[in-house]
Order: sequence, then structure tokens, then C-alpha cells
Amino acid sequence: MNRVITLTTDFGLSDGFVGMMKGVILGINPHATIVDITHDIAPQNIAQGAFLFANAVKYFPANAIHVVVVDPGVGSARRPIAIQIGETIFVAPDNGVLTLAIRDWKLEIQSPISNLQSQVRAVHLNRPEYWLPRVSNTFHGRDLFAPVAAHLSLGVPLEALGEPIGDWVRLSQCAASWRAGNEIVGRVAHIDRFGNVITDVGEEMLAGMDRARIVVMIRGKTIRSVKAAYSTVAAGEPLALVGSSGHLEIAVREGSAARLLGIQFGDEVVVSA
Amino acid sequence: MNRVITLTTDFGLSDGFVGMMKGVILGINPHATIVDITHDIAPQNIAQGAFLFANAVKYFPANAIHVVVVDPGVGSARRPIAIQIGETIFVAPDNGVLTLAIRDWKLEIQSPISNLQSQVRAVHLNRPEYWLPRVSNTFHGRDLFAPVAAHLSLGVPLEALGEPIGDWVRLSQCAASWRAGNEIVGRVAHIDRFGNVITDVGEEMLAGMDRARIVVMIRGKTIRSVKAAYSTVAAGEPLALVGSSGHLEIAVREGSAARLLGIQFGDEVVVSA
Amino acid sequence: MNRVITLTTDFGLSDGFVGMMKGVILGINPHATIVDITHDIAPQNIAQGAFLFANAVKYFPANAIHVVVVDPGVGSARRPIAIQIGETIFVAPDNGVLTLAIRDWKLEIQSPISNLQSQVRAVHLNRPEYWLPRVSNTFHGRDLFAPVAAHLSLGVPLEALGEPIGDWVRLSQCAASWRAGNEIVGRVAHIDRFGNVITDVGEEMLAGMDRARIVVMIRGKTIRSVKAAYSTVAAGEPLALVGSSGHLEIAVREGSAARLLGIQFGDEVVVSA
Repeated sequence: MNRVITLTTDFGLSDGFVGMMKGVILGINPHATIVDITHDIAPQNIAQGAFLFANAVKYFPANAIHVVVVDPGVGSARRPIAIQIGETIFVAPDNGVLTLAIRDWKLEIQSPISNLQSQVRAVHLNRPEYWLPRVSNTFHGRDLFAPVAAHLSLGVPLEALGEPIGDWVRLSQCAASWRAGNEIVGRVAHIDRFGNVITDVGEEMLAGMDRARIVVMIRGKTIRSVKAAYSTVAAGEPLALVGSSGHLEIAVREGSAARLLGIQFGDEVVVSA
Repeated sequence: MNRVITLTTDFGLSDGFVGMMKGVILGINPHATIVDITHDIAPQNIAQGAFLFANAVKYFPANAIHVVVVDPGVGSARRPIAIQIGETIFVAPDNGVLTLAIRDWKLEIQSPISNLQSQVRAVHLNRPEYWLPRVSNTFHGRDLFAPVAAHLSLGVPLEALGEPIGDWVRLSQCAASWRAGNEIVGRVAHIDRFGNVITDVGEEMLAGMDRARIVVMIRGKTIRSVKAAYSTVAAGEPLALVGSSGHLEIAVREGSAARLLGIQFGDEVVVSA
Repeated sequence: MNRVITLTTDFGLSDGFVGMMKGVILGINPHATIVDITHDIAPQNIAQGAFLFANAVKYFPANAIHVVVVDPGVGSARRPIAIQIGETIFVAPDNGVLTLAIRDWKLEIQSPISNLQSQVRAVHLNRPEYWLPRVSNTFHGRDLFAPVAAHLSLGVPLEALGEPIGDWVRLSQCAASWRAGNEIVGRVAHIDRFGNVITDVGEEMLAGMDRARIVVMIRGKTIRSVKAAYSTVAAGEPLALVGSSGHLEIAVREGSAARLLGIQFGDEVVVSA
């Protein structure tokens, strides 16, 4: 069956780890279409993985299977899980890395007649007959998650792969929040290749604000107003805008905001109007 | 339809941008075969993108669709365009990034009986019904170019996607030229992973020269004669040769010419014989 | 025919070289499924290429075709070869880069009734009709190995592509060995993205040892006992373990062993019990 399986990991592309996962998948389902989302999550950074994955997942077909392996607890007691919402299936260690993707999914489909909640099914992946014969202590991406995703892509039902569970781990601090009613407090969730600083402040939080009067504070710097595009400021100037992922970003036109403003992953950002 | 769609961008592979483009394409055409040419064009370097894309494109099937997104003007008035030559279709921002690929195409097919010119069709992509429902100001690769390429791969005719145009932007300074009739003046168009320095001096310009007597000057250094292979010099020695892309290259056997000779992108190179 | 073709090279992903290889393959077999193992082999490091390829290849379908291009001798007299074992076919320069993969294959299938040896066939790829019309001196990956693999994936028999040969180059020093009967002497074969140090000491060599009493010496440091998992030591502590590739590894929990212990590719490691 030609079905999309996406891979998001912190494995990098240099060591052959991702290639092995693809070999395992194609050995089980030769017709799977495998797509890399990213393999450059900072090693073991669950929060960054959750953020980048949630941004990308909404652009894939509804029947895709998504494998997310940022897995500092591999070899410990953390559970491997799979969660199905509608036709979409997520396969990951149970460490919160799916938190934002599932939250976004629910926000998206919050119509009153939705019976989404009843459609969310989750299992603890505990049926070794769907794994590689030999499972290492350090590489469940290859030995467990890849074969599970491949079997799912062939139509094996979720419940065949493990015991139903009602709960799974959520990241507690993974999105911006309101402070004292008029300030948004968020964090730097990602710095992209261009040095753009992407925060976890979603566009919907800015809905009631006058963008021309918004003040963004980060690392002791103040940036005034939220612009519509890079081209509204001169080259080398910083600006705030809503980026392509739907989050507040700090950028420098034709430059690296992260470098020029000294901003790092996890830095606090405060937004007021 | 199983048709090749290539991607060439300056997005890198770390941020998930390329994965999103693939998700969009596969959502429209699940049978597309997507191939990465490179995503490591230096950010917003149109000249480098034009050079690397033109080198690669000739190795793809004639019915491939090529998406090239190096797009410093995204969100401004620059047009998104598509150009069709024979069965091949190029999709890109109208900023010159296709200049070399289209020039090479014409050089290749310059037989007198060719009616190539009449076969070149171009459109301004201005039909939003073929884009994502919501188009960001900063990521047309995902929101516009990817869906357009996917629809083209399904057989939607070029003219359905936009208004025909007769002109498009060409890079003015994108190839070496003759000075005073006997000197070629070019530039460093790319430095590859091995530190080889690839110039924009095409092999055809050296046609009338005695390769043993050619003198290459770059960054104050002089390299004599154009060799046939690395193995003609000792390890650590610089040499000039015609590389696999059909351009004059400066290399150091078992070393990095760029580092050892202090050469950078854009440096001038002068060739005489 | 939908058949897997893997690519392992030292070309990197930045220059478009790998994209060109894929274009060539898909031009010959539009239904090939191409998978990257890695393109980040250190430039011209045959030993590292042999090691990473051998680790990955066993996870692919038995009828896959594997192209391995780490090729310092390109343009010289070194032969291009293809080796078939059962349904699996390897395509590479004849410089030893296949040594470990073929050795592992034999170890795997050493049942007394195996007639494996009679199944190993090798050819010198010397039939230019299966190459690109024009073959460069510097890029046989694109001009020779890619088209050969594509033709093989269409079912062209091995012997059509070249003259049978009985010998091929093996790396002499590519695996750990016993010294004085009770010490294993090996080398650092790879350092992965996490800074884990992977040695060429295979798990099978540790079979007769009491893991709790094993002593590993490397760069003047001594690490005692071979653990089962990272979680057996405190964060920041070094440990030895058998990694996911089945080799002895030196790691630091939540840290980079290579950096913290100053270990480099090729360093000697001595194991005793």
C-alpha cells in the first residue's frame, strides 16, 4: 500500500541511522512513501522535536503515519506508544513529544458536532511480534518504531500492536501563556537556518491586539509592532512578524536575528500591547 | 501519475521546511517521485542556486518538474512563474534563478531544425485555486510552488495555472566572458564539499586553447596548464581541470583548494593561453 | 520494477551530486525506490565508509542494490565492480569499501549446508553501453555506478555488465584482532552525531568474557565493565556498552564521549578481561 510514513528524529543524517529505519520499513512494506521531516532535532531535545513536528504534520495527507523519535529514555521503562486520530497515526516514545501535534489537531477540529475525543485511540506498543526479532537497548527507532509504522501502513489495526491506554505523557510547559491578563509569556521554541527566532506564541494569542502597538521583549531588547513582511524594514534591522508556522518570530532582514541579538533556544519572550 | 518533481532551495534540512513541501505535494499527487537536488544553497544566493541547479537538471528525465526556491523577494511584488520547454517544467520565483538552466537547455538543443523557441512557454502563476488555501508572506515554497508543481505533475496544463508572459528575469552577470579577445574573465560559482573551487568558465570556452599552455590566475596565485585528472599532480599540489560539471575547477589533490588558496565564492578568475 | 537502490557516498548533500545520481537512476528505472544510507562519509575515508555501510546494509530487503562510492582512485586504473550474493547486489569502486559488508554476509550465513561461496559472483564493470554516454574523470558515481545500478534494478543480469572476476580488493586492517590470546586490539571506526565512539570490536569477540570484569583502554583512559544501557551510570559519566550496531562503544551519558575523552577516528582501543 502506497501510504506516507514521515520520520522526525534527532539522529542526524551522517551515521546511517535514518537509512536503516527506511530499510526496515521497505522490507515490510515495499510501497511505503517515506518522507523526512527533519533529523536535526537537537539531541534529546523533546520540546524542540514536539514544536517542529507539530508545525510540519498539518501539511501531510490525513492518512499519513508519523514516526517521531526523540528518545532520551530509550532502554528505560518509558513506553513506546501509538496514537490514532481519524486516519492519522502517530508512533513515538511516550515522553511528550506528541503533545503539540495532538493539541493542534484538537484545536483544528473543535466543531461542536465533532466526536473527535471518541476517535482518539492510543496503545502501548507491547507486541514484539511486530518488531525486529532482536531489539537493541539504544535504537528503538530502527528496531521497534520503524517496523510498527510499516505494519500499520499495511493496514494492521492499531489495537493489534498493543494494549489500549487512556493516558499518555504531555509536556507541561510547551506553549506560551497569559500573565496578569495582558502579557504573553513565551519561549524561543526554535532557531531556523536563517537565524530567525521562532517563539511558541501562536498567532491566535495576538488576535485581540493592535499589531502596530505590540511590544516584544527578549534578551533585554525591545521590538515594537508586529509587521506583515521582512520588506517593511531596512536590511539589517530587526522586526517581529508572524512567520510561516503561525507563530511570532523575531527576524532581521537579510541577517541572523539569533546571532545579532544574542538569542538562544529557550529564551523567554514577553509580548504586550 | 508517477512523475519526478525535484526540489532545489536554500531552506536547509533542519527546520522541516522541505518536509512540509513534500507533504503538500504528496497530498495532491500521492504518486509523485520527489528528489532533492540540494537545500544548501547559501541563504538567498540566487547566483549559486542558478549555477548548482543548472548543473544538476540535465541529469533528470525530460518530463521532470523542477521547483527552485531561492527567494529573497518572497512577500514582495516579484512574480511566481512557471516555464515549460518541451516536457520539462520549471517552477520558481521570477528572480533569475532559472537563467542558467534555460540557457543550457537552448545550447544543448541548437540544431538548425529545432523549433525550440516556439516551444518555450511561460506563465505568471496567479491562479490561487492551485495554491494552499492560506498563503503566508514568507514561505511560498510550501504554499504556492509545491502545490503548483503537484498539480502540474497530475497533468494540469501550464496555462491553467497562470497568465502567459513573454519575458522573465535573467541574471545579467552569471557566466564568464571574453576580455580583449584573449582572456576569459569568470567568477567562483561554487565551492564544493571537498573544497574544490568551481568557476563559471565552461569547457566550451577552452575549446580553441592549448590546455598545456593555459594560465589560470585567482587570488594572486597562478596555476599553469589544465590537467586531465587529480592524479597528474602530487598530493597537496594545486591544479586546474575541467570538473564533472563541465566547468573549469581549481583543486588540490587530497586537499581543499578553497582553504589552501584562500578562495571564496564570487572571486574573480582570469584564464589565458 | 520497484526495487530498492541504496546510496552511500562521501559526496555530502550540499552540492547536488547525490541529486544527479538519483536523476540518472530514475531516467533509466522510473520505479526504483532510492534510499540514502549516508553521504557524510569523511572525504575519501574508505575504512569509515566500509564500516558504516556494513552496519546499515543488513537492514535492507534481500533484493536491494547497494551503491557505495568512496572513491579516491576515481579516474585512475582502479576497477569499477559489482558483486552479487544471492539476490543482493553491491556496486562500488574496487578499493575495499565492500570488505566488511561481504564478510558480515558470510558470517551471517555460515550454516554447514550453505553453498554461499558458489553464489558469490563478481564482475569488472567494463561495458560502457550501460553507462552515461559521456563519463567524466571525477564523478563515476553519476556517470557509471548510478546507471549500472539502475540497469541492474531493471533485471539486467550481472554478467551483462562486465567480465567475471574472481578476486577483489579487501581492506587488510578493518577489524579488531586478538593479541597474545587475551587482549583485543581494535580501532575507533566511527564517531556518531551524539559523540558516541564506535569501535570495530564486534560483540562476538566479547562472548567468552565476564562483562563485569572487562577493562577498556583508550587514549590513556580506563573504563571498567561493559554495561547494558546508558541509564546504568550517572549523567556525564563514561561507560562502555555494546551499541545498536553490535560493536563495543564508549559513550558518556547525556554527553559526547569523543569530546570529553578527546577521542578521534582511528584511535586504538584495547579490551581485556
